[in-house]
Amino acid sequence: MSPAAALEDFYAVVPAGGAGTRLWPLSRAARPKFLLDLTDEGRTLVQGTWQRLEPLAGAERILLVTGGEHAAAVTEQLPGLAAHNLLVEPSGRESMAAIGLAAAVLHERHGDVVLGSFAADHVVREQAAFHEAVSQATVAARAGYLVTIGIEADRPATAYGYVRAGAALGLPDAPAVRVAAGFTEKPDAVTAGAYLATGEYRWNAGMFVATTRVLLDHLAELLPRLHDGLRTIAAAWDTAARDEVVAAVWHGLQRIAIDHALAEPLAQRGRVAVVPADLGWDDVGDWSSLATLLPGGRLGDAEVVRVASPGAFVAAPEGLVAVLGVPDAVVVVTPDAVLVTTREHAQQLKDVVGRMPDDLR
Amino acid sequence: MSPAAALEDFYAVVPAGGAGTRLWPLSRAARPKFLLDLTDEGRTLVQGTWQRLEPLAGAERILLVTGGEHAAAVTEQLPGLAAHNLLVEPSGRESMAAIGLAAAVLHERHGDVVLGSFAADHVVREQAAFHEAVSQATVAARAGYLVTIGIEADRPATAYGYVRAGAALGLPDAPAVRVAAGFTEKPDAVTAGAYLATGEYRWNAGMFVATTRVLLDHLAELLPRLHDGLRTIAAAWDTAARDEVVAAVWHGLQRIAIDHALAEPLAQRGRVAVVPADLGWDDVGDWSSLATLLPGGRLGDAEVVRVASPGAFVAAPEGLVAVLGVPDAVVVVTPDAVLVTTREHAQQLKDVVGRMPDDLR
Repeated sequence: MSPAAALEDFYAVVPAGGAGTRLWPLSRAARPKFLLDLTDEGRTLVQGTWQRLEPLAGAERILLVTGGEHAAAVTEQLPGLAAHNLLVEPSGRESMAAIGLAAAVLHERHGDVVLGSFAADHVVREQAAFHEAVSQATVAARAGYLVTIGIEADRPATAYGYVRAGAALGLPDAPAVRVAAGFTEKPDAVTAGAYLATGEYRWNAGMFVATTRVLLDHLAELLPRLHDGLRTIAAAWDTAARDEVVAAVWHGLQRIAIDHALAEPLAQRGRVAVVPADLGWDDVGDWSSLATLLPGGRLGDAEVVRVASPGAFVAAPEGLVAVLGVPDAVVVVTPDAVLVTTREHAQQLKDVVGRMPDDLR
Repeated sequence: MSPAAALEDFYAVVPAGGAGTRLWPLSRAARPKFLLDLTDEGRTLVQGTWQRLEPLAGAERILLVTGGEHAAAVTEQLPGLAAHNLLVEPSGRESMAAIGLAAAVLHERHGDVVLGSFAADHVVREQAAFHEAVSQATVAARAGYLVTIGIEADRPATAYGYVRAGAALGLPDAPAVRVAAGFTEKPDAVTAGAYLATGEYRWNAGMFVATTRVLLDHLAELLPRLHDGLRTIAAAWDTAARDEVVAAVWHGLQRIAIDHALAEPLAQRGRVAVVPADLGWDDVGDWSSLATLLPGGRLGDAEVVRVASPGAFVAAPEGLVAVLGVPDAVVVVTPDAVLVTTREHAQQLKDVVGRMPDDLR
């Protein structure tokens, strides 16, 4: 298969949400990171995700699942997104509901197709490798597996979960695919180092590929109430009854991540496959992560002066920011809020945002 | 003498200059710290200085020496300042020229009077103690001494010069006055600790009191060219020839601090007296100093959130500033420039300001 050609019967689903806490004060609840140009490339993260998926799925086969508060911004940022492919959730119900809704709607519309779910706010630098990995994932998906992309770990990261790659599946047309021997939560540093040393552990980037049939059947078995609720909603989605059915059913849906709902239990049965890949991936998970992505140590048009402050990162739209004697500082300036921290403390930002008045979150 | 009464024949001189570097970016070359309300008391430092001196000298006997670029701001901030008491220097020539000009002009106008020189941008919390110290200083000044106020040192500060107090002079009406055994430059920490242990060393706050006759006679002997230049200018000051004479003479005047020009050589001859005093004095010398003066750890109306950042200081006019994991941080937000440093590095700020474009200095 040529990397330039779209994958057959393949639909990309992009759950786009987030509380905006980890990259506060640039990201806010009302303007989370997928709506921001954080990588200084002249496009927002969701636009980058779109541009990455369009060659694989085609513009008509990309669905975006988001909250009502972000629908207008998404529509503005993604002019190629078909109106019927924007699935608006009445409220966030975590990833299983978002991806499950997309799977059920796709199944209703098109029957059994292959679905790939990709976060709206991650970075992937290696487009060709991404295309190849997803291509092999679709082969494994058609063979009945729930497939994840396992990112090559180049450091003992403690901010990511890991997936352990087992034996090769030996699928024709998908030589890289291996069985997933299991998932782990974010490890401590010692454990992460041990994972890295084995060469078997990959970062779980939250990319999942499966046929709608496989995904929905497993969901029906493992979480039947959630499955039934989503199917009920999907049956009404493209009808005049949508709003009424959504209003009646949505708020009762279980909040659960797809990792816990499907990936972990199915891995225990040997029903999860992993495609190891080196994608130049990053989840842009916090300011330290973003600082690493931006080697100039800056975001925005402010002039930056650093004295005795190696590794200092500054995000500011204008003016001048001087950092003196604070190595690895993280300084983020916005019109109504300023953050000063260090890369080491970036992961604790949630504690700070929790103290914010609502209008600044 | 009652503390409420003005001192007889006493004139206060306030040299008001400064490059604005040590409290950048709030202070700028065009708006140095004496023009700012840094202590959050609803008055600028020069206004505080005025209010401190007015009970001693009376409004008509306070002279202010400043550069032309600050004359309008000074006039606006000090409505009680008589126009003829605002001495505008064509350019900064350090403290001996500024104080010497005031002394020469006063001598020209009033004959031999007592002059006290006090910085425009220091803080004195104890008004009654200040009044008493200056009062005793005028007694010693009339006895022929150059008199300085020696501030009780409560810590081994390395940012100040010291004056060593010797034997009591035994002046009637001025029992606290002692001979000054010598001045020192800013010491290192070990030396400062040794000074503190002796109990004999006081901080040199740059407050000098002398009669115009004593000051000018010593200047004539020690720096005759500077003396002659200042007397020439003073003779023309209140005449139509002022601008012409100033233009011809001013730029040739020696740049030297009064400490080096008079205080140190005269102390060697036993001609300097010191009035030990506990004034709640601070020179507001840098951000660390200001942070100590403001126990709330803030200046301006911004909301401040500190997490794992004890001792963090924030100066910002509005919005919210969050500091996470940076103990003793100093964060200063202005519309066009932001500074992030620590109290430890505050003294190095000059290095940063040196890298600034001119319009941000």
